[in-house]
Amino acid sequence: YVAIWLDQAGEEKLAASSGSETTDLVSFPLAYQGETIGRLEVARRAPNEQFSEADYRLIEKIAQQAGAAAQTVRLNTELIRSRAQIVNEREDERLRIRRDLHDELGPMLAAQGLKLSAARQMMRTKPEKAESLVDEVIQQSRQTVADVRRLVHGLRPPVLDQLGLVEAVRDLARNHGGGLALEIIAPSDGLPHLPAAVEVNAYRILLEAWNNAVRHSHASRCLVKFQAEQDMLVISIQDNGVGMPKDYRSGVGLRSMRARAEEIGGSIRIDDGKPHGTRITARLPLPAFEGNTK
Amino acid sequence: YVAIWLDQAGEEKLAASSGSETTDLVSFPLAYQGETIGRLEVARRAPNEQFSEADYRLIEKIAQQAGAAAQTVRLNTELIRSRAQIVNEREDERLRIRRDLHDELGPMLAAQGLKLSAARQMMRTKPEKAESLVDEVIQQSRQTVADVRRLVHGLRPPVLDQLGLVEAVRDLARNHGGGLALEIIAPSDGLPHLPAAVEVNAYRILLEAWNNAVRHSHASRCLVKFQAEQDMLVISIQDNGVGMPKDYRSGVGLRSMRARAEEIGGSIRIDDGKPHGTRITARLPLPAFEGNTK
Repeated sequence: YVAIWLDQAGEEKLAASSGSETTDLVSFPLAYQGETIGRLEVARRAPNEQFSEADYRLIEKIAQQAGAAAQTVRLNTELIRSRAQIVNEREDERLRIRRDLHDELGPMLAAQGLKLSAARQMMRTKPEKAESLVDEVIQQSRQTVADVRRLVHGLRPPVLDQLGLVEAVRDLARNHGGGLALEIIAPSDGLPHLPAAVEVNAYRILLEAWNNAVRHSHASRCLVKFQAEQDMLVISIQDNGVGMPKDYRSGVGLRSMRARAEEIGGSIRIDDGKPHGTRITARLPLPAFEGNTK
Repeated sequence: YVAIWLDQAGEEKLAASSGSETTDLVSFPLAYQGETIGRLEVARRAPNEQFSEADYRLIEKIAQQAGAAAQTVRLNTELIRSRAQIVNEREDERLRIRRDLHDELGPMLAAQGLKLSAARQMMRTKPEKAESLVDEVIQQSRQTVADVRRLVHGLRPPVLDQLGLVEAVRDLARNHGGGLALEIIAPSDGLPHLPAAVEVNAYRILLEAWNNAVRHSHASRCLVKFQAEQDMLVISIQDNGVGMPKDYRSGVGLRSMRARAEEIGGSIRIDDGKPHGTRITARLPLPAFEGNTK
């Protein structure tokens, strides 16, 4: 009997097994680039029979080989989970928007129509009643404008539609300044047209990077550089501060930046700035999907 | 010089290379489960030097081994691409909804408010003018209701909110009947609460399967069975028709069913029915994401 257990999202899960299960097992760690990512379990040939030195060495070698394959399986599982989660969140959002619009806005507009028709009829005969109906509708209408605005703001950062990505960063620096001077370098003829996802995720990455620089770097200046390569938007954010503490490199802010880049097929890189400070580089692919594959 | 080329979405792409490039190369196919998925290119040791029989056998063996690894790389690349595409589509949709609401509904409601205020003022002095303003608003408001309905219908099949998944299928059969009798088996105490994505994707899979049965199967009956397992919704659609032509098994309808299942981490299986017909089984995981990982 042989079984492979993998650590998946903090839980150990059975990935593969062969032979009939038994309890008398010897366990070998599966590692990938120094990190233990699971266990290889092997049954003794006979109860209480010890493995020989050579057996151990052989199985350890197999466990090493299996480590790389196991890492791929973990990565695949994680990708499938991540995609499913994005789809689940998308459909939850659609449901929420649908309910906001269909169950609230729709009936409200219908009720407005009725009130206005009634007001229209009695305008000459009962002007006071008509006035009060029109007042109600005006009041409700203001409420509706506010509701729609709230719904709209939740969908994507409004500043992107008002200012575009580059100016949105300048705006960000103005509003979350923290005494940090911002310099922006962008192509003189502007960025190419960015897909909505690249624009939004770039903005969220920049927001996170800026906040980090303001809160932790003790920097006085921050340089944000936008470059459009053939099929890639490359953004680097460089400050002249104290650099990142080593333990931050896996912190929440960085994880969220990385997730933002990865969900659109991009990557984040962190380098020590020269002569000091930190440089964060985001590489975000500009998709060229001819035709939808659905 | 050694290089690995992989077929990715119909294009051959360089996946890895080592050494300095040269033009005098011998090419070996990389295969996985009988399918050619790429090429291994190896440079001759010296110009025009032939590989020996033993060299060929060795490289072919390496190409076989590399096939499995290459398949994993392809699968990973495809998963990353697929996730990025879903995120891109989501953000395009958010942008579209935002524009519909912010650029059209917002200003329109604001304009309505102004017209109503004006009507309110002149109701007693210029009733005809006031009436015509109110008429305009009533007219516009009808248009807005229609616009909102259009927006809402695009978000998810409205029938799901009206009837729920099981009854939506009955409705589907009524409206796209094609002389096929439908029998539904569902848990007597109803299905558990389904996440929006599972409900929508299940419905789209059922719609596709039903259309296939109506158009191609020459069946007279179709049995749809819903089962809720612990963390899985299992749906089987079985007809008593002629079965699927072999070449259909990779057709567009089936690909779209499979994509719908896979994007939420599920799977589709197709079996020959007993004694005839086709059975399609969709297994869709019910996610239990405690807390959002974002």
